[in-house]
Amino acid sequence: MNNYASVPVGVLGASGYAGRELLALLSRHPGASVAFATAETGAGETLEGHQLIRAQDVNFASAEIVLSCLPHGVSGRYVHEARAAGKRAVDLSADFRLSPEAVYGLTEFTRPKVAEAELVANPGCYPTAALMALVPLAQRGLIDPSREIVIDAASGVTGAGRSPKRELLFGEVSEDYRAYSVGNTHRHLAELKASLAREGGFNGDLVFTPHLLPVKRGILETIHVPLTRVVDQATAEGLYEAAYDGEPCVMVTKGTTPSLQHVVYRNRVAIGVAPVTNVRRPRLTIIAAIDNLVKGAAGQAVQNMNVMLGFEETAGLAC
Amino acid sequence: MNNYASVPVGVLGASGYAGRELLALLSRHPGASVAFATAETGAGETLEGHQLIRAQDVNFASAEIVLSCLPHGVSGRYVHEARAAGKRAVDLSADFRLSPEAVYGLTEFTRPKVAEAELVANPGCYPTAALMALVPLAQRGLIDPSREIVIDAASGVTGAGRSPKRELLFGEVSEDYRAYSVGNTHRHLAELKASLAREGGFNGDLVFTPHLLPVKRGILETIHVPLTRVVDQATAEGLYEAAYDGEPCVMVTKGTTPSLQHVVYRNRVAIGVAPVTNVRRPRLTIIAAIDNLVKGAAGQAVQNMNVMLGFEETAGLAC
Amino acid sequence: MNNYASVPVGVLGASGYAGRELLALLSRHPGASVAFATAETGAGETLEGHQLIRAQDVNFASAEIVLSCLPHGVSGRYVHEARAAGKRAVDLSADFRLSPEAVYGLTEFTRPKVAEAELVANPGCYPTAALMALVPLAQRGLIDPSREIVIDAASGVTGAGRSPKRELLFGEVSEDYRAYSVGNTHRHLAELKASLAREGGFNGDLVFTPHLLPVKRGILETIHVPLTRVVDQATAEGLYEAAYDGEPCVMVTKGTTPSLQHVVYRNRVAIGVAPVTNVRRPRLTIIAAIDNLVKGAAGQAVQNMNVMLGFEETAGLAC
Amino acid sequence: MNNYASVPVGVLGASGYAGRELLALLSRHPGASVAFATAETGAGETLEGHQLIRAQDVNFASAEIVLSCLPHGVSGRYVHEARAAGKRAVDLSADFRLSPEAVYGLTEFTRPKVAEAELVANPGCYPTAALMALVPLAQRGLIDPSREIVIDAASGVTGAGRSPKRELLFGEVSEDYRAYSVGNTHRHLAELKASLAREGGFNGDLVFTPHLLPVKRGILETIHVPLTRVVDQATAEGLYEAAYDGEPCVMVTKGTTPSLQHVVYRNRVAIGVAPVTNVRRPRLTIIAAIDNLVKGAAGQAVQNMNVMLGFEETAGLAC
Repeated sequence: MNNYASVPVGVLGASGYAGRELLALLSRHPGASVAFATAETGAGETLEGHQLIRAQDVNFASAEIVLSCLPHGVSGRYVHEARAAGKRAVDLSADFRLSPEAVYGLTEFTRPKVAEAELVANPGCYPTAALMALVPLAQRGLIDPSREIVIDAASGVTGAGRSPKRELLFGEVSEDYRAYSVGNTHRHLAELKASLAREGGFNGDLVFTPHLLPVKRGILETIHVPLTRVVDQATAEGLYEAAYDGEPCVMVTKGTTPSLQHVVYRNRVAIGVAPVTNVRRPRLTIIAAIDNLVKGAAGQAVQNMNVMLGFEETAGLAC
Repeated sequence: MNNYASVPVGVLGASGYAGRELLALLSRHPGASVAFATAETGAGETLEGHQLIRAQDVNFASAEIVLSCLPHGVSGRYVHEARAAGKRAVDLSADFRLSPEAVYGLTEFTRPKVAEAELVANPGCYPTAALMALVPLAQRGLIDPSREIVIDAASGVTGAGRSPKRELLFGEVSEDYRAYSVGNTHRHLAELKASLAREGGFNGDLVFTPHLLPVKRGILETIHVPLTRVVDQATAEGLYEAAYDGEPCVMVTKGTTPSLQHVVYRNRVAIGVAPVTNVRRPRLTIIAAIDNLVKGAAGQAVQNMNVMLGFEETAGLAC
Repeated sequence: MNNYASVPVGVLGASGYAGRELLALLSRHPGASVAFATAETGAGETLEGHQLIRAQDVNFASAEIVLSCLPHGVSGRYVHEARAAGKRAVDLSADFRLSPEAVYGLTEFTRPKVAEAELVANPGCYPTAALMALVPLAQRGLIDPSREIVIDAASGVTGAGRSPKRELLFGEVSEDYRAYSVGNTHRHLAELKASLAREGGFNGDLVFTPHLLPVKRGILETIHVPLTRVVDQATAEGLYEAAYDGEPCVMVTKGTTPSLQHVVYRNRVAIGVAPVTNVRRPRLTIIAAIDNLVKGAAGQAVQNMNVMLGFEETAGLAC
Repeated sequence: MNNYASVPVGVLGASGYAGRELLALLSRHPGASVAFATAETGAGETLEGHQLIRAQDVNFASAEIVLSCLPHGVSGRYVHEARAAGKRAVDLSADFRLSPEAVYGLTEFTRPKVAEAELVANPGCYPTAALMALVPLAQRGLIDPSREIVIDAASGVTGAGRSPKRELLFGEVSEDYRAYSVGNTHRHLAELKASLAREGGFNGDLVFTPHLLPVKRGILETIHVPLTRVVDQATAEGLYEAAYDGEPCVMVTKGTTPSLQHVVYRNRVAIGVAPVTNVRRPRLTIIAAIDNLVKGAAGQAVQNMNVMLGFEETAGLAC
């Protein structure tokens, strides 16, 4: 166990919502110090006590590990630079999530590999919640592969980024609710399917439909699972409790299902289940909730960093 | 066509959210006047210019037709009183929705019966949106009865009533989102299944999961339909356009799906579709939206009343 | 009284929040039809059933009266074109509010001049609420000119327009509240002072501080008035009731003060008062509320148009 | 300096919004452990890992210090019991704020007395923000006592408590905004005036008007101060920077004014100023913001407890 000497951490892309959350977490982390933090348009400004610089002005030598919140497409290039400078990295973009170059950092399932990894691909926010709900069932062969899993996921607006767009104005989002990428076209689908196959051995069909909620943060996924056999409430809950026994960042709600309140501002996945009544074939509905900026982004990145550095896994995190 | 002489309309239960909406609509209706409006705790107060009285003090003779927003269980008794006094009635509660005593007032599908009805059961808010989306497909035999229809529905808080409950406080609901009646246990399920069987001939399984949105009004339902054959975007849209040709209260969004913005404060159902990609068997995802207080309650009640009285169907309604 | 033959009305700038509200009001107006509606970036799109064209493509001959929601600076030029084509106009921008060229359209106080006007400058949203609250007191000599009037005004975000700006994103505005133009620097101050001097004869000092509320629409102003003499609750309320006797668009709340709920989606000013206790010198606090898009913009413009055309003043308006 | 051996802390009234915030803060506090936590209706439930008991079942001997979030009126009685058992206490209710029995815990101004106190009265949320803004000016004789200070304060709904009341329902509060206790009748006025006289020597008039914001947490006060002489922006900011030099929980925003974003979830007061232009006599407008549940309640209570126990003042607090 590292004695919390202060490890210098570099942050790429600190001005978006995930980047700001990450900078805030690191600023209060007992074993980390911020070596640098970058932002393009905000360079020169101060955030959480750190003066932002431009990514191209970074000296990677000043950091022991680099965490990148840069946009998809841009992030990969800078992470490669950090790797070329001999630094370990956690990439929060989608650039390495389907790549053999990186370890997929769904911490609860890939912890040993994360500990050894030079490069960790932090999971997407939607896949994090879905996988935490589905992998335990898939590993036990409980999901009927001949029927489709249906996932309706709802996210707060910080999941859509901080760039000014009309459809994200308060005047448009407040009192509204909408689906998007309807028809199974969201870019997270491939990540979700690949990870569910790798971690859970499930290769059936998935229908994933995201929605935009008029809240700032939080993801709640309603996950409809066709089962291979009938599972009652106690058995289903017991299954999750066993699967996540001793896990500090997972909460199984018993006899009820979680809401965003259970998870916001925490590095936590909350999971609740209900067997489906009034249907002919066995089904389970799972509700899984996370804070998209914490367990869905910056928090899980810190959790992975803690594992990589040999810190207590929840250091600097409220779970 | 009635010449809009002012028909006296009695309102039972005017102090809840649906009742207030109804009173506001009737107060601006070109052919109706409010004969009486009742409220228990608010008796004596003035609402939309009408002094509220207690239900037990009503003189049914003063009205030509009675609309009831009383709670389930209570409503039936007063509606029977109105009927005994020889008055036609529209009941917004669930008390007659499964009863042969009443015509089910899903106006677009039961218009001729509504015109002749003495008693109309106004559909529930969730079933209204779901049925408007599903009946056209069911009538054409396009829904695969061997697979489950999955409906995730999200409603604004006015759908949960105006009685003070902790879980409906702003401090609890704002920035939150939650599912309820998870496991297919919502009381609207029976109404939905019975109506879909009756109007569309569909007898397969349905999984219905409602959610509470941090908005005041509006319902958006994400409806996952297993199809008997592949249907492309244009065909699906064309099907709905044909089914609702000439209907003033239905909007089919083309090439996109609706959000609450399209429907709030209007007596409108908005429907958009997307064939599901990346799955092996044919599927369609439908998004249907209504204002729970208008097309989901008071507006549809006025629409039914207009049909009953021979008024223009949209008199007093913004569609 | 005009018999509601349909008067063709041209709308300049229909794609912003005020413009959209205006187009919706005119589309339901019993005596008006939309001759044209313009939008720059949205040209070609359809809004409320009207195809938007670019302002430079307008044929002013097709309209009998022109209402402009164009931005300050731009509006004046197009209104001059409409005037050159012989058309009457209501300008919702600030371009003519301090100009002798136009009649200031605070309808309740300038009705006779509006009826005859060729060009009406529609008041700003903040001044509308403040003037409706202050002019009656000023006209009666009740405001102590040796002490400052202090106005804290809070507006919904639609008052800040529909252009994408980071500070107006849902992720920034929700759960936030802030003052702006602190230090008496808001551009509405000059309009307010000039109008209060002209209509009420008051020439003392005003401190005006606007705030941004996390709501879509509505303005509530808390107006602290130093009085020349003690006025009790009943006297103050009686004064406003007398001042606005018979006015369909003004509501005086008795024994309480209004909130946004009293005014949103209505062309109404709601005013409530409370004499200030626990201070040495006489003071009155007034709460005035309007919907910034209705009585604060599009609704008052229609109200003025109705007066100009000899229509019933509230035609097409919910008050 | 206490070495953070775990001091047992008793919490009275843990189920309201302030109590829950306090329990969460103490659960993560490096030097405190929760000895007991009480709730009346929620007794038996678990909150933040602590099983709630009823207040009458408390054994005060198990705690070294007691913090009470009980309601006004009830709190005093239990705090007297704790004192009789020889325990130090911080009372978050209003019961001791005007009493010589307790030290007023506006930490930045009464720190030495708090350190020695047996009983600390934690300031009210509104007075905290107002006093932090006004005391520095008052101490320097800059406030003109012949003119009224006007304070318009806006609070999130958690300030109104967690008991179910219709006017606090999401359906009522969302998209609404209202003033209350208009006419200078709020019960915090006496506390504010007494404290401003005691700490700042100011005895002039104050007009205080609270408002209810559609946000969960946060207070922003717009404070209009008549000055004895002209003070420019730099001088005003310098004055606050000097007054709060070295204070970890005070932020002076330079060249701008704070919003709720600057303070929520932090034990921080943020203060910004603007000299008032366009008026004849010198005036300063101050914007002061706090989180009503943190610096306005639970956070300041922990801050006071830290001072009483000789801990680092910000232990367990994010400032």
